[in-house]
Amino acid sequence: MQALVLENVLNLSLREFEVPAAMGPNDVRININTVGICGSDVHYYLHGAIGPYVVKDPMVLGHEASGVVTEIGGSVTDLKLGDRVCMEPGIPDSTSRASRNGQYNLDPNVQFWATPPVHGCLTPSVVHPARFCYKLPDNVSFAEGAMVEPLAVGMHAAAMAGITPGDVAVVMGAGPIGILTALAALAGGCSSVFISDVQKVKLEIAASYPNVHAVNVKTQDLATVVRNATAGWGADIVFEASGASAAIAGAIAPLCPGGTLVLIGMPLGPVAIDVVAAQAKEITIKTIFRYANVFDRAVALISSGKIDVKPLITHTFPFSQSIRAFEFASSGDPSMVKSQIIVDASAG
Amino acid sequence: MQALVLENVLNLSLREFEVPAAMGPNDVRININTVGICGSDVHYYLHGAIGPYVVKDPMVLGHEASGVVTEIGGSVTDLKLGDRVCMEPGIPDSTSRASRNGQYNLDPNVQFWATPPVHGCLTPSVVHPARFCYKLPDNVSFAEGAMVEPLAVGMHAAAMAGITPGDVAVVMGAGPIGILTALAALAGGCSSVFISDVQKVKLEIAASYPNVHAVNVKTQDLATVVRNATAGWGADIVFEASGASAAIAGAIAPLCPGGTLVLIGMPLGPVAIDVVAAQAKEITIKTIFRYANVFDRAVALISSGKIDVKPLITHTFPFSQSIRAFEFASSGDPSMVKSQIIVDASAG
Amino acid sequence: MQALVLENVLNLSLREFEVPAAMGPNDVRININTVGICGSDVHYYLHGAIGPYVVKDPMVLGHEASGVVTEIGGSVTDLKLGDRVCMEPGIPDSTSRASRNGQYNLDPNVQFWATPPVHGCLTPSVVHPARFCYKLPDNVSFAEGAMVEPLAVGMHAAAMAGITPGDVAVVMGAGPIGILTALAALAGGCSSVFISDVQKVKLEIAASYPNVHAVNVKTQDLATVVRNATAGWGADIVFEASGASAAIAGAIAPLCPGGTLVLIGMPLGPVAIDVVAAQAKEITIKTIFRYANVFDRAVALISSGKIDVKPLITHTFPFSQSIRAFEFASSGDPSMVKSQIIVDASAG
Amino acid sequence: MQALVLENVLNLSLREFEVPAAMGPNDVRININTVGICGSDVHYYLHGAIGPYVVKDPMVLGHEASGVVTEIGGSVTDLKLGDRVCMEPGIPDSTSRASRNGQYNLDPNVQFWATPPVHGCLTPSVVHPARFCYKLPDNVSFAEGAMVEPLAVGMHAAAMAGITPGDVAVVMGAGPIGILTALAALAGGCSSVFISDVQKVKLEIAASYPNVHAVNVKTQDLATVVRNATAGWGADIVFEASGASAAIAGAIAPLCPGGTLVLIGMPLGPVAIDVVAAQAKEITIKTIFRYANVFDRAVALISSGKIDVKPLITHTFPFSQSIRAFEFASSGDPSMVKSQIIVDASAG
Repeated sequence: MQALVLENVLNLSLREFEVPAAMGPNDVRININTVGICGSDVHYYLHGAIGPYVVKDPMVLGHEASGVVTEIGGSVTDLKLGDRVCMEPGIPDSTSRASRNGQYNLDPNVQFWATPPVHGCLTPSVVHPARFCYKLPDNVSFAEGAMVEPLAVGMHAAAMAGITPGDVAVVMGAGPIGILTALAALAGGCSSVFISDVQKVKLEIAASYPNVHAVNVKTQDLATVVRNATAGWGADIVFEASGASAAIAGAIAPLCPGGTLVLIGMPLGPVAIDVVAAQAKEITIKTIFRYANVFDRAVALISSGKIDVKPLITHTFPFSQSIRAFEFASSGDPSMVKSQIIVDASAG
Repeated sequence: MQALVLENVLNLSLREFEVPAAMGPNDVRININTVGICGSDVHYYLHGAIGPYVVKDPMVLGHEASGVVTEIGGSVTDLKLGDRVCMEPGIPDSTSRASRNGQYNLDPNVQFWATPPVHGCLTPSVVHPARFCYKLPDNVSFAEGAMVEPLAVGMHAAAMAGITPGDVAVVMGAGPIGILTALAALAGGCSSVFISDVQKVKLEIAASYPNVHAVNVKTQDLATVVRNATAGWGADIVFEASGASAAIAGAIAPLCPGGTLVLIGMPLGPVAIDVVAAQAKEITIKTIFRYANVFDRAVALISSGKIDVKPLITHTFPFSQSIRAFEFASSGDPSMVKSQIIVDASAG
Repeated sequence: MQALVLENVLNLSLREFEVPAAMGPNDVRININTVGICGSDVHYYLHGAIGPYVVKDPMVLGHEASGVVTEIGGSVTDLKLGDRVCMEPGIPDSTSRASRNGQYNLDPNVQFWATPPVHGCLTPSVVHPARFCYKLPDNVSFAEGAMVEPLAVGMHAAAMAGITPGDVAVVMGAGPIGILTALAALAGGCSSVFISDVQKVKLEIAASYPNVHAVNVKTQDLATVVRNATAGWGADIVFEASGASAAIAGAIAPLCPGGTLVLIGMPLGPVAIDVVAAQAKEITIKTIFRYANVFDRAVALISSGKIDVKPLITHTFPFSQSIRAFEFASSGDPSMVKSQIIVDASAG
Repeated sequence: MQALVLENVLNLSLREFEVPAAMGPNDVRININTVGICGSDVHYYLHGAIGPYVVKDPMVLGHEASGVVTEIGGSVTDLKLGDRVCMEPGIPDSTSRASRNGQYNLDPNVQFWATPPVHGCLTPSVVHPARFCYKLPDNVSFAEGAMVEPLAVGMHAAAMAGITPGDVAVVMGAGPIGILTALAALAGGCSSVFISDVQKVKLEIAASYPNVHAVNVKTQDLATVVRNATAGWGADIVFEASGASAAIAGAIAPLCPGGTLVLIGMPLGPVAIDVVAAQAKEITIKTIFRYANVFDRAVALISSGKIDVKPLITHTFPFSQSIRAFEFASSGDPSMVKSQIIVDASAG
């Protein structure tokens, strides 16, 4: 089978590659249709590692995927041949202590697509547990289905934030995760979102959504903008999605007394946080890691029309041009939000 | 000053009436613009009492109001002359134990408009604490402003439900509170709402909103509809807004394991609840009373366009026809959702 | 192997019985030491059924157990031969939706000891998943270990109640579950517990614990007692552990504004609840079902000395007298709180 | 009236001083009995300021107090002459937005004893709102009553931590706040507490309480100790009570997946926090400020015997020796946990 293989740093091949894929009774086989390119895929391509995760052997990339069910394990009852699905890429040990607590995303033994040494899904067919495949309603396309994974990050952040209906939120960073978090926050109960960045094009895309207000922190002070818009009170929630140390350090100021800061972005090193400023407002800081139990919710919000991910899919490539797709995604083109690769061009 | 006075059961006068209204330093005087008619107003008109609250002396009706600030107490800093506002009708003792706990709606000494012996606001001018007046943005009309009070009931229900983004909700009862609760639930994070009633016209109005699905329980079984729509799992939240004993008793069945039932409607007597059925799913039942800390949130969601209350204002009367307005509101006309009285026809 | 078998209603045998018990890689084999008799065991003995659970074929009784590990599956790493353990008797499907949500107790396919058609543990040896076996520290006896299961019910109730440190609680019902819930509530943060019953002996046992105040509802009004003790405010939490309809109906009155009612006891039919009285105080009602993720916590609190279960073990029988033990447990002897059967008299 | 007055840095007088003290209808006058010396009192004495709070004019010190009611305002109903009470030293604006939300400790206009320019209570008589006076049961002494204020800090930390019964906690720092937090955590539901410090004497006092385990971080690695004691899982909660930057930075390591860090201690500057390490475990960080709604709970737990503060009152001085008391409290004597001043030696 063909696969997009990261041989080593900066070295991609689209070539024959065998990923072991035995079907168990609770598994399904899926014909991959669309795979989005994530920042982490690009990071492995450019640097060969993310923190402790080092690519030592050739590894198939890709973990944002949709497809069609082509084979069903003997114990699977809630999926059938031909079902259009998207897939949750991390398979935890369901019996671990973290899983028993309902936090399967924290299971240290999770097997996650395209996180070494686990292969990803940029290949025509994969085997996956049925319970981590989610049916796409007819009005959700394969392209939208492949957006569920990055949207799930925003959904988890919104769920962990404990939104009270009508909350005012700030999102720091207008990359794909930032914008998807803004959409999740709005669909999840916020009345408005202030999104900050320094890139004008990204801010314009974000601000094209209703109730998303762009703040260019090159020229505007975020805390001042938020204070002015909230009669001096501040934002109920700040979602930090940039990972920039300066942004994290500045995330306390826009918050209201009793507010919540959700740390999504992963900084490169320790961040100097003004603890006393946080204490004076009794800020709660929630750190989050991937997601749990949100894929079906993300699908439902796309299907309902409450979240529209389509404007964010700015570039599309055929499978045969996967390497070019990664080169483009690595180029820093300011017009790009999300690039996707169509693995199976024959399907709708 | 003129006022709509409930003299005694079934006996209304629009006549001169003096409501004592001394301005304190933290108060404002408000020119009343619009007042909605609530089911409780109608109930006092028809029955002279609600439970322990008995109308013994002539009482001014009305508690869903918007207006314009015409005088400012000496310590008021966040309102100014001419501000368009809506008013929270209950004034608690801010120093009581319930208030200190953040649940000022549970203060037993709350003074609430048009709850005997406290006079309401169907009169051209009232004095009110500034902290319970909420500025209306330019894009929110007086008519919408007078809808904030009933919407606040739905907002409080949605806040107390602890919605997780993407939840599926059921609302039982498609009266004004039921529909407003459905809108609050959707704006507050739900992906879709199934609303049940037996009145076709009300269900049609409800179903004209996106993601609201009408269930006519004359002909359909609510639990079956919900189960079919959720792959057998059930609804995350049921909001009971009818107050009908049969509805409350039937509110467990549509819920998913771990689901939440919010009891808004007030039944006439004790309700037989199947506790064991609730236990088998570990249902949480939240009972609620009025609202606290949600008026500004309701205003924000109307202003943002996330909640559109305009289709629910089905009938409007001038102040001079207040009595006819109450007669109509008492008639059970199926086309009525909300009737409003314009007290000051001179303003926008 | 010998086992205590419920042949059919009122018909027990202590006889040879083969329970299929293949070891899987994640299982351990356990030499049963002590088994407590639960009210549900007695109920099956007397009535042959509990609700939908009907004993159709001979079934081994018992699910409150401690013992010694005698064999280890190949993948088990955190237990070793000779470990003294207690066992959580319900084995859920860890991959079900309820389990993924962290509520494995709500998994409809849970296999629970001595719930037909699943056999219990009143037999010298059982096979059990290692992850549902909990090591007993040296200072926790087998008898105490066999109390962990009923204590877990109280622990789960205490966890679900969301105790704030210093809360005042009421426990309705001074049977084993009631008293264990009182102990869990005190260890879990309450400052004092008022426990109500009509049986003087049980109340005396309960009141022998510090900070447990007995209320004999034959002669005292519970709500009045609580109100007097709390300056008129009421209890923060009521745990209903009797299952009596009258008790459940009376559980709203002792609560404070914003209080929580936890329904543990399972009534025989629907219960008439005064919803309006609950709404006036915004009571939250939590219904609970068994337990999840609390066995290790219960063991820790026994080992720490914060919970002393020993005074509740009022009667002990050798395995050979199991039938007599059940006859005694069914007799309604007021001096009995918990009867236990020593299956293996050779161990400490 | 005599008062202990901080004239300016390092300059205390025990002299005549008039604190304006008009009685309002909701106030009581209190004969001060005992006042504890807080670290903040000492800090003002040594440095003349804490952050933005600068002592510009002579200020009476002291805010940890108990006493006797000697005069009652006309509207006060729940206190009477001769009642023994302790006092909550911060008086918020009850109508502010933070107060309405139930977080009156975050009201920016709070008037707090001995926080400039507000005078404290080291003087024979004060006037205070009745609602912030808490009756002491007969079995709680004045000395214990004056410990309620520092205990309230620990109680608030325990309440904000969201303890699940049986949690394992760590407390960093074995000063008075650290030890009181440990006691609040144990009384509030934890099964055991590991308390860390570098001062042997303080650790010994802490470890004299049941279920408190001392960890001398001069010689032991805290995270390793906790991991070994929890089968590798980690602590559910870490309370950071030292304010030391290194301790705060090291507070992530001992936590379990999904654990909570409560930041009580106030560091001198920004603290470098390893956000990615926190994210890998989805740590929640709660920052806290003083307390709200816990004084009655603290009194109840002392009265019940669940918290014993007496061993922490290591030194006592008569009012006439107040200056010596401050000199001693500033000396860093390792045997001191809490010093108290007896203002009225005539009472019990």
